[in-house]
Amino acid sequence: MEKVKEKSNTGKKISIILILCSVALSYYVYNVLHTAPEMPKIDMDAYWGHYPLDSKPDLSIKPFYVEFSVEMIRELRNLLLHRRQFVPPIEDAGFNYGFNSNFLTQVLDYWQNKYNFAEREKFLNKYNHYKTKIQGLDIHFVHVKPEVTGDVDVVPLLLLHGWPGSFREFYELIEELSPKPDQSFALELIIPSLPGYGYSQAAVRSGMGPLEIGVVMHKLMNRLGHSKYYIQGGDIGHIVGSAMATVFPENVLGFHSNMPVLSFTPLTLFYTILGNFVPSLLVENEIYDRVYPLGKYFSFLMEESGYYHLQSTKPDTVGIALTDSPAGLAAYILEKFSTWTNPNNRNATDGNLLSKYMLVHLLDNIMVYWSSNCITTSMRLYKEHVNSKYGAIVSRIPTKVPTCGIKFKYELMTEPDGILKLKYHNYLHTTVVDGGGHFAALESPAVLAKDILQAITTFREFWGEKKPQHASQGNPLTANTVYEFSVTDLYGRNVKLEKYRGNVLLIVNVASQCGLTLKNYKQLKELHEKYTDRNFKILAFPCNQFNGQEPGTSSDIIQFINEKEVKFDVFQKIEVNGENAHPLWKYLKQVQSGTFGDFVKWNFSKFIVDKNGVPVERFGPNVDPIDLEPEITKYL
Amino acid sequence: MEKVKEKSNTGKKISIILILCSVALSYYVYNVLHTAPEMPKIDMDAYWGHYPLDSKPDLSIKPFYVEFSVEMIRELRNLLLHRRQFVPPIEDAGFNYGFNSNFLTQVLDYWQNKYNFAEREKFLNKYNHYKTKIQGLDIHFVHVKPEVTGDVDVVPLLLLHGWPGSFREFYELIEELSPKPDQSFALELIIPSLPGYGYSQAAVRSGMGPLEIGVVMHKLMNRLGHSKYYIQGGDIGHIVGSAMATVFPENVLGFHSNMPVLSFTPLTLFYTILGNFVPSLLVENEIYDRVYPLGKYFSFLMEESGYYHLQSTKPDTVGIALTDSPAGLAAYILEKFSTWTNPNNRNATDGNLLSKYMLVHLLDNIMVYWSSNCITTSMRLYKEHVNSKYGAIVSRIPTKVPTCGIKFKYELMTEPDGILKLKYHNYLHTTVVDGGGHFAALESPAVLAKDILQAITTFREFWGEKKPQHASQGNPLTANTVYEFSVTDLYGRNVKLEKYRGNVLLIVNVASQCGLTLKNYKQLKELHEKYTDRNFKILAFPCNQFNGQEPGTSSDIIQFINEKEVKFDVFQKIEVNGENAHPLWKYLKQVQSGTFGDFVKWNFSKFIVDKNGVPVERFGPNVDPIDLEPEITKYL
Repeated sequence: MEKVKEKSNTGKKISIILILCSVALSYYVYNVLHTAPEMPKIDMDAYWGHYPLDSKPDLSIKPFYVEFSVEMIRELRNLLLHRRQFVPPIEDAGFNYGFNSNFLTQVLDYWQNKYNFAEREKFLNKYNHYKTKIQGLDIHFVHVKPEVTGDVDVVPLLLLHGWPGSFREFYELIEELSPKPDQSFALELIIPSLPGYGYSQAAVRSGMGPLEIGVVMHKLMNRLGHSKYYIQGGDIGHIVGSAMATVFPENVLGFHSNMPVLSFTPLTLFYTILGNFVPSLLVENEIYDRVYPLGKYFSFLMEESGYYHLQSTKPDTVGIALTDSPAGLAAYILEKFSTWTNPNNRNATDGNLLSKYMLVHLLDNIMVYWSSNCITTSMRLYKEHVNSKYGAIVSRIPTKVPTCGIKFKYELMTEPDGILKLKYHNYLHTTVVDGGGHFAALESPAVLAKDILQAITTFREFWGEKKPQHASQGNPLTANTVYEFSVTDLYGRNVKLEKYRGNVLLIVNVASQCGLTLKNYKQLKELHEKYTDRNFKILAFPCNQFNGQEPGTSSDIIQFINEKEVKFDVFQKIEVNGENAHPLWKYLKQVQSGTFGDFVKWNFSKFIVDKNGVPVERFGPNVDPIDLEPEITKYL
Repeated sequence: MEKVKEKSNTGKKISIILILCSVALSYYVYNVLHTAPEMPKIDMDAYWGHYPLDSKPDLSIKPFYVEFSVEMIRELRNLLLHRRQFVPPIEDAGFNYGFNSNFLTQVLDYWQNKYNFAEREKFLNKYNHYKTKIQGLDIHFVHVKPEVTGDVDVVPLLLLHGWPGSFREFYELIEELSPKPDQSFALELIIPSLPGYGYSQAAVRSGMGPLEIGVVMHKLMNRLGHSKYYIQGGDIGHIVGSAMATVFPENVLGFHSNMPVLSFTPLTLFYTILGNFVPSLLVENEIYDRVYPLGKYFSFLMEESGYYHLQSTKPDTVGIALTDSPAGLAAYILEKFSTWTNPNNRNATDGNLLSKYMLVHLLDNIMVYWSSNCITTSMRLYKEHVNSKYGAIVSRIPTKVPTCGIKFKYELMTEPDGILKLKYHNYLHTTVVDGGGHFAALESPAVLAKDILQAITTFREFWGEKKPQHASQGNPLTANTVYEFSVTDLYGRNVKLEKYRGNVLLIVNVASQCGLTLKNYKQLKELHEKYTDRNFKILAFPCNQFNGQEPGTSSDIIQFINEKEVKFDVFQKIEVNGENAHPLWKYLKQVQSGTFGDFVKWNFSKFIVDKNGVPVERFGPNVDPIDLEPEITKYL
């Protein structure tokens, strides 16, 4: 017996040592991972053009017209006509081996014979184009100013395209973003071609990555008179915009991304892997399937990132072929429009391209690449991005610029909000869309436009420039106490929380059909009975957001609480998560954020508010009300 | 004090537990890693052609001629003439961003204006070409039979090219491999185009990886009457050859590789990483710099494997452009001939291409791709390789087929012999070359030919078909005891080891200028004095292979041992490692292989041979002679 006991003691000691080591290691890892690097000293005047420098910098902004010359059209048609015989695809390959050569014939025939070059040239010129020289490069941009009168703020929005996109991607979106009658602002759109893309000149020397492009874009906005502005971007446009939001936090009023992801860093990787094991801590249910299981996700990314690997190492080699062959260029670009719109398109012989896009629109975008001969320089950006030391550092520095994202279902990469917030400290909102892919502007212009407008509204609320929609219910961004909010009771009457001043409050979201319902209502009642005379009040908010366990109307809820003989205050059903969450709850979550993300995890989450109206404690659904007694009495 | 003692005991217990766990884990990992999978059931009659099957299989072998038609030449010249304007390279980029477009002009002008198509067509037809149908595909091959008379064995050698090479690569090598007067054998060369390459048809459906190609190649050899044959290969040719050596061990008499590497598996990765920490255990000094430090090695591989990533996922997409543009095809292929010949070539504006190759030869190879329109199907092989389940399994199964390798300095990947032996259990020899790159046949035909001929000799010795060169000194491949060897003493006299029969022997390599010299000679003398009358003899072999610490002549050594009053037997200076090692030492190392690789690690390695002439123990340089006393007396 003696010996057994000794062994057991040793076991305990080993356990304790291992636990202590784990804790120390975790603490160390946590600290290392969460330590952001210092902002590097970025050269704001780097010169990317040919030498010698102009004696006097040219700051002029000159009109520009897209031109499809007769000569260029003749050469292109000739190349298309005399294209070589392509080898047939592997049996039943669809797009799984890359662009299906059988379907390519259809694309090339259309381009050669049916694409109306003159009409399309006119179409591309329907908005005003300009060029201006910045840091040695001619920068091209489309400029769309809104026609507005009266009490409407005109706010500038920089729209940033990616690869293999262009300014053309945004043409349908421009319509959707035009001023709306009921909107307190109107957008002025600035849509540049990234340097080396379309009609913007390319850097003549190495080193111009997304960060350095961000500097040029910032100067473009300044030159147009906008020291403060909003940014929208996806793909590389997202990377450029994110760098701008980090480097110019005083200037960027808000950043909206349709590819809200972070660079892979030890920190993001750590959390991404953590999410694999404890998804509930980190990953919203709606997007779980898009990222996990991780093995499948990474395998998909590996399958789809060959172009990335090549372009970030040897862009000029493949650039020769794509420059020389319109068929090759079309296949190379359109493969992305097929697979990135929906990976299932790989199984279709036609890549399902024409079900989502009009061929003429896709060819407009290819014409931007062909007519400007920019495919090689566009691909070089991958190499500059991967090799950029400063770019990598900046990507790891957090920003407080308010940020919103929209997550389309088939976007190549998806990031949980909990990870995004590591970088975007004011990540205000995510819209999760159950469809759509990478080329949102071209595929889903209405959905994207709606979300951009909503984001701008959110950003303006953040800055207090306009009354928020729920002003009458209180503003979570400016409030100091819960007394600044109003709620609605089960009979539809407005209740100002001011009336609870001086009380300790327990605020809880409830549901009547939850496994936790019985115990929670019982114990809440006990607490209420015991302490209500000692300035303690319970405020219960029915909510149907967790597995639909509060499906009824106000009448149903009144009946339920009458049966239960509930005496504490129960209010009208609200939402506690998402954009339509009640402002009071937004405020509670903001002040008392949860362990992993501030969203409410389930029915019967509990907040304690002290006598001064400040939320001081937060407890999860698994904490029984009765166990809060010591906490409550502490504040009484 | 009591407490301190207890803590110390606990510490000891923890240490012991941790050590036991590590040992158990190591044992487990070792076993898992070293367990080879079972040979999968490979379909030897898979059909890769179009349906319907012929009612009667066509086994005929038909002559074939390479043909550059007037029409094809006209089209090609026209495309080259009307090629587009390529964007200039990034300043000072050399080949670092891929093929330099400035230099490309020179290549394309030559191709268009100076490449003599008729003459080159004639050149390519200088050897006999044939086609024969195997498993549904027309397989093309060059067949070179030697003209020999008398007592010379004609042995068949299959030469396997890789990507982006072709049968053309071997033309200069063919000359070098022609029969030599003093050679006991002559080579019959079979040089196929891999299916999907050059004039061999491509599979019409998915699944034809290097393993499946190996089956076709084996059938080709059989059809030519060779049930037993040798193989030489590099690049994908190495992978095909390696699969054949594994699947057909009864047929492959020997395998020579100029890219002797294994697939990445947990086992090879484990050893490769181990070599990073304990190089002396695993890695020959001569190649250490080619693999380590691993970070640099992997980073280089990452930089150079973009094409691999793309081709193993979307070969058909980039295939469109390379099919359509001769300029694109030339740039894509020649970038590899530049960088893979020497990575430093990336810093040259012309990729240093013409310093190692004649442009006309490089264009011959490109013409094979262009005239057969095979670039897309050639690239598909990467996808089939990566997706091949059976191929991956076969790569992990060891083979006993005798294997030799030649390691050129700038080959993309280098593998230590110790790792190669995990797969090739009869890995007989490595030649390390201090120069040369991936395209050995074209760049260094004489060096490669010499090594192939030497390897065939070694293979034939292995099979006992010819007396080995050092027959008079004994044959390590057939010997049963050390008594079958002869050595030379310091006075140039032949000494048969037969004279030592019945003695226990200590055989040691010595050097006179080593840090270990003093102690070892002193203790060896002591051992000799004490046991020489009890049938114990010491045989010392001076060797200058370890840091040149035995630089002198036999006279110098005689003087040295006289000064030291050495009474035991010292022989003439020999080599103990490498291809010129004395057969006795090859035999000793073979029977008593070291912990990690059988090579002798340093001066004063020691072998104990028992009274029957069998090597029974081996000790490293760090074991003092005097400590061997118990071992020696054990065998007396």
